[in-house]
Amino acid sequence: MELVPSNSLKTATPQEGRELAIKMARLAIKATQPDAEARERLRPVYAENPDSLIAIGQVIATEFATIAAANDYWR
Amino acid sequence: MELVPSNSLKTATPQEGRELAIKMARLAIKATQPDAEARERLRPVYAENPDSLIAIGQVIATEFATIAAANDYWR
Amino acid sequence: MELVPSNSLKTATPQEGRELAIKMARLAIKATQPDAEARERLRPVYAENPDSLIAIGQVIATEFATIAAANDYWR
Amino acid sequence: MELVPSNSLKTATPQEGRELAIKMARLAIKATQPDAEARERLRPVYAENPDSLIAIGQVIATEFATIAAANDYWR
Amino acid sequence: MELVPSNSLKTATPQEGRELAIKMARLAIKATQPDAEARERLRPVYAENPDSLIAIGQVIATEFATIAAANDYWR
Amino acid sequence: MELVPSNSLKTATPQEGRELAIKMARLAIKATQPDAEARERLRPVYAENPDSLIAIGQVIATEFATIAAANDYWR
Repeated sequence: MELVPSNSLKTATPQEGRELAIKMARLAIKATQPDAEARERLRPVYAENPDSLIAIGQVIATEFATIAAANDYWR
Repeated sequence: MELVPSNSLKTATPQEGRELAIKMARLAIKATQPDAEARERLRPVYAENPDSLIAIGQVIATEFATIAAANDYWR
Repeated sequence: MELVPSNSLKTATPQEGRELAIKMARLAIKATQPDAEARERLRPVYAENPDSLIAIGQVIATEFATIAAANDYWR
Repeated sequence: MELVPSNSLKTATPQEGRELAIKMARLAIKATQPDAEARERLRPVYAENPDSLIAIGQVIATEFATIAAANDYWR
Repeated sequence: MELVPSNSLKTATPQEGRELAIKMARLAIKATQPDAEARERLRPVYAENPDSLIAIGQVIATEFATIAAANDYWR
Repeated sequence: MELVPSNSLKTATPQEGRELAIKMARLAIKATQPDAEARERLRPVYAENPDSLIAIGQVIATEFATIAAANDYWR
């Protein structure tokens, strides 16, 4: 399955880098729980749990750090 | 939706870098839970939970590490 | 036991880097819990727990950061 | 509100860098929970919970990593 | 007590770097809980808890990042 | 209070770097909970909790990453 959209860490802007970070975080979870129905069932659980949302924010921040470095911080 | 205000990691000062880190952390959570009412409902839960507040501090620290590197630490 | 497939962090693409990150994360857990039956027993527990899935995503993001740096971000 | 004392990551010594890390961690939490009374109410909760204290240690370690890099590790 | 086997971060291969990461993670826990009997008693607790295993995976990933950098990623 | 022993991140060896990481992690917790009696009371709680021990291992790994970089990995 696809884990890195376009198979590249290169993006034109920080905004696109952030979108890639969110996608990569989601695809990693999909690789661990490939059952779409199970993922649908879990969505309302984490979407209403602030600690889950914060933890997702932590994963996105970590993915983004790598993507930002890969793009030399869009300098 | 906007994930990186001004679509740039560049800021004039560490203070502004910190403000950007906080905004980016919030926008990542908004991307995961786009329902404004749900986010409002969750606010008093995490705002009164020290572990949630600490976890948010961890996300901000991680976002800030990237922003600080992007600004060459404002040296 | 094998902890790094092919004993190398080098991969041709980000997609393969991501696959390596997932494998290394799994092999580290296997090194800690080598009993295959125990791991099988635990699978439905974490696969139905959103916080476990998010935590696995965090480990994958951290492993991937190292692999991406090792490959100079496939630039 | 002030998020980075003196609006600078520069410090004379590692000790001062560590003090800055602690202050920045606290100010980030203050930005999320601006109500001083609420923060006072939560203090005895986390101060008597080892897991909260460890999590605060994790945030401080992360902030310090950035500050140390900003000061070229005081070499 | 010994915290870094051979007192060196240098390893010949990624596989050996990974083994060192696992050992360093275990030795840090041993430094915090030096009582061997207590550690034995805790083993079945974390070995049957997926969240504990994932958290151990996170520590190993973090230790490995440092070891990999120390070895210039075995390039 | 002292937060960085000898006010330096420089150490002669990885072993000493690891000892410094452990000390800095403990001093950060001491800065947050300065009451020695309270810390004594909490010790048996975290020392018998595998998840607390793993979380301490995570903090040590993070502190060590900074110290290792500060010492150019003792290369």
